Amino acid sequence: MILRDLAHRLGCEVRGDGGVDVVRVAGIDEAGTGDITFVSNARYVPRLAKTRASAVIVSPEVETEVPSLLTRNPYLAFARAVEALHPQPRPMPGVHPSAVVDPSAVLGDDVHVAALAVVGSGARVGARTVLHPHVVLYAGAQVGDDCILHAGAQVREGCRIGDRVILQNGAVIGSDGFGFAKDDAGRYEKIPQIGIVVVEDDVEIGALTAVDRAALRETRIGRGTKIDNLVQIGHSVVIGSDTVVAGQVGIAGSTRVGNKVTLAGQVGVAGHLTIGDGVIATAQTGIPNDVAPGSLVSGYPAIENRAWLKSSAVFARLPELHKRLRDLERRVAGLFAAQPPTS
Amino acid sequence: MILRDLAHRLGCEVRGDGGVDVVRVAGIDEAGTGDITFVSNARYVPRLAKTRASAVIVSPEVETEVPSLLTRNPYLAFARAVEALHPQPRPMPGVHPSAVVDPSAVLGDDVHVAALAVVGSGARVGARTVLHPHVVLYAGAQVGDDCILHAGAQVREGCRIGDRVILQNGAVIGSDGFGFAKDDAGRYEKIPQIGIVVVEDDVEIGALTAVDRAALRETRIGRGTKIDNLVQIGHSVVIGSDTVVAGQVGIAGSTRVGNKVTLAGQVGVAGHLTIGDGVIATAQTGIPNDVAPGSLVSGYPAIENRAWLKSSAVFARLPELHKRLRDLERRVAGLFAAQPPTS
Amino acid sequence: MILRDLAHRLGCEVRGDGGVDVVRVAGIDEAGTGDITFVSNARYVPRLAKTRASAVIVSPEVETEVPSLLTRNPYLAFARAVEALHPQPRPMPGVHPSAVVDPSAVLGDDVHVAALAVVGSGARVGARTVLHPHVVLYAGAQVGDDCILHAGAQVREGCRIGDRVILQNGAVIGSDGFGFAKDDAGRYEKIPQIGIVVVEDDVEIGALTAVDRAALRETRIGRGTKIDNLVQIGHSVVIGSDTVVAGQVGIAGSTRVGNKVTLAGQVGVAGHLTIGDGVIATAQTGIPNDVAPGSLVSGYPAIENRAWLKSSAVFARLPELHKRLRDLERRVAGLFAAQPPTS
Repeated sequence: MILRDLAHRLGCEVRGDGGVDVVRVAGIDEAGTGDITFVSNARYVPRLAKTRASAVIVSPEVETEVPSLLTRNPYLAFARAVEALHPQPRPMPGVHPSAVVDPSAVLGDDVHVAALAVVGSGARVGARTVLHPHVVLYAGAQVGDDCILHAGAQVREGCRIGDRVILQNGAVIGSDGFGFAKDDAGRYEKIPQIGIVVVEDDVEIGALTAVDRAALRETRIGRGTKIDNLVQIGHSVVIGSDTVVAGQVGIAGSTRVGNKVTLAGQVGVAGHLTIGDGVIATAQTGIPNDVAPGSLVSGYPAIENRAWLKSSAVFARLPELHKRLRDLERRVAGLFAAQPPTS
Repeated sequence: MILRDLAHRLGCEVRGDGGVDVVRVAGIDEAGTGDITFVSNARYVPRLAKTRASAVIVSPEVETEVPSLLTRNPYLAFARAVEALHPQPRPMPGVHPSAVVDPSAVLGDDVHVAALAVVGSGARVGARTVLHPHVVLYAGAQVGDDCILHAGAQVREGCRIGDRVILQNGAVIGSDGFGFAKDDAGRYEKIPQIGIVVVEDDVEIGALTAVDRAALRETRIGRGTKIDNLVQIGHSVVIGSDTVVAGQVGIAGSTRVGNKVTLAGQVGVAGHLTIGDGVIATAQTGIPNDVAPGSLVSGYPAIENRAWLKSSAVFARLPELHKRLRDLERRVAGLFAAQPPTS
Repeated sequence: MILRDLAHRLGCEVRGDGGVDVVRVAGIDEAGTGDITFVSNARYVPRLAKTRASAVIVSPEVETEVPSLLTRNPYLAFARAVEALHPQPRPMPGVHPSAVVDPSAVLGDDVHVAALAVVGSGARVGARTVLHPHVVLYAGAQVGDDCILHAGAQVREGCRIGDRVILQNGAVIGSDGFGFAKDDAGRYEKIPQIGIVVVEDDVEIGALTAVDRAALRETRIGRGTKIDNLVQIGHSVVIGSDTVVAGQVGIAGSTRVGNKVTLAGQVGVAGHLTIGDGVIATAQTGIPNDVAPGSLVSGYPAIENRAWLKSSAVFARLPELHKRLRDLERRVAGLFAAQPPTS
């Protein structure tokens, strides 16, 4: 594809030679002839002097000799360039003869049901959706249009998945919530989990992530939210839209997470809390209480990020502070001993 | 079902109109006509004034106009009401033609082996047990009566599962323990893991949880213990009865966990430890040493919970304390400078 | 097998009766007639006096009446003794009729493809490799010689696995990296992840561990590295050789981990970092910055281990220190009040 055509497709302006040929995307250091790269971070601008890329996606204010696509959001344009230059092959529509599809299931137009996938009774699969090998839809599960369910992904009974949802390999939607009542002898009796999970449109859920069904009503993942691998979402949790949940995060039951929240890796959130819109929790934060909208929190238990950074810096010096305190105690004790009686 | 009949079934007393019809369970705020709800926490008693539920399960001392089932343990009665009013459909007995069952495997009466499940040579499946699609039992695995193994759950060679056990989706029982010996060049050589896993009766194991087989003898999960999703149980770990292990907990090899222990979310327990009966570890606790029976511990490294709460409160004020220490040092230094020689 | 023959096989010297029969390995406390045990830790030497084992593997300097195999590395010899005395049955070569193997896939000599495994178009499987039930190889995946892929393990499109690699149950190699670009409305757009994962020779990857494919080039796991269960490896991470990654560790995107590193359980490593050769991070450590080769680090954020141990000890005494600081402030204030003006 020549640069001018790619610019047209991405809605960018061209600076320099629009006739140069671009066939691949690449990182700025590895790029060579035929590659287009990008700079979205000012830190990398100096590397443009040395890149061998045929073209680069940059902000208009970045100056370079390299033929350029100009845009206010180079990273987004890059994402789209990957899609344009490296279109992913789409499996052919059809149902593999080894798949087990219940006669009462409803398959939309042009679905792909791969080898050994299972579609239970009354389940529905939307148009153009792809079920990779070994996907399992339990009875009554619903999956929307244009979804991709990777191998081993599972949707339990009655759960509903929107349109354009991606489930990575082995993701489990609708496993039983962790609910037990204790009897007088201290033994636990299972509370049947009769709710469901609702996954709204444009959500992506990572490999080996579990989203538990609600005890009574629903667990819900809001539109456009992206969840990474090995995440645990407890029963009746509600997550808003455009939220990012990084790897190995755990959210306990009945907690509500707002819109445009970011939970970094290994964060833990206790149950029955409210995490406001726009909250950011840095990696490994442990959240035992509600968090106000817009907060940036860290630590365990979570406090405001700047306070945590300062306290952490002092933490590393605690043995020294302890020694200074002891020294001071000795000096002050000495003063008292040395001082003549004041009356 | 009328309330009087439900009372009979749950072993509760009726207060008010026992002829009211109850068809569903619901939360106190969402409940309407035909719904039965419950109050087990004094905090929610005031909401009874506004509920539109047809009936409620409460302790005898709770006063309300709503027709009531009276019991000392409303939460337990509620669990049983869910079961009574929302019976889960049981798959029909039979072996799906696409399942692969070794001729030497032994299936009990009325088992359900779903599509594409695999039962290896010499494996045994107890009466009325349900194997959902894609369950895999390796050679010689044993599963007791009345178990439910959800899709993708796996039991490795020779492992033994008791009666009434539930494995959620993708749970792995009996993966190799993480055991390697280092050679002189610093390379690791695998120690074959020739032990097994024993899961006792009435255990539930969560989605995508891994329980490793022992190096030599057995890893054991005690009767009635409940394990949540994405938990890691190392080789040769022994867990007692009626213990609760929440999501994303990790327990390293050869550790012994007692009875009626609670490990909250994301707790980590080092290897070769003894965690006493009745211990509670709050979320994200990191346990590097033995814990005495009945302890309540928190923090990393774990200390007594009250001490940890107090230290955490001071931690958040460390920069202020540091400043106060510096101020004090200056003042005391000033005193020394100002003071006339004492001799 | 008689002890002398085992000694020959393991390259050890015999002390005492080389004609004694050994048929099993066992722990020092449980061993009986016919068992061989080992002592690799000086702490366990006293137990040799009471063991009923028929033989023991020890260092030459350990004195005991028990017939012994002498070696500088008893643990390694023990690993090999397990292998010698408990050879694991190898599945017979062949392709189960229920497996779905694309006609364009290439299978090496003597491979075992179990029931319901899926081998995609153009995939390659090396000689003597075992694919357990429900293994999925996507199109173009390559697996080397003498590998064992346990049930439910998956290798995504184009990923490459070396020789003698073991994937435990449900491990996912090559799931999409977690990469999204934000648009002007704050919505996330997926960046297609067009790189691969390369797993070098002699690697073992634990149950339910996910290794994400790179955005552009490759994620790489170095020769001989051992990864435990439920670990998350982000896209474009590069791990060196002979490194150990324990259960539930998370490593964020583009981080480079050196050779002979040890990351203990639940450690988290942020993205774009460099962790030097030989680093050890203790359990639950949170690493936000580069770590120099040979460091031993702990805590969150990670600091040098000895400093962390000392600071943690003071942390537990913070309420007491706070009180001492207050007392001192009062005493010093009293001194100022009591003191006559100095001029």
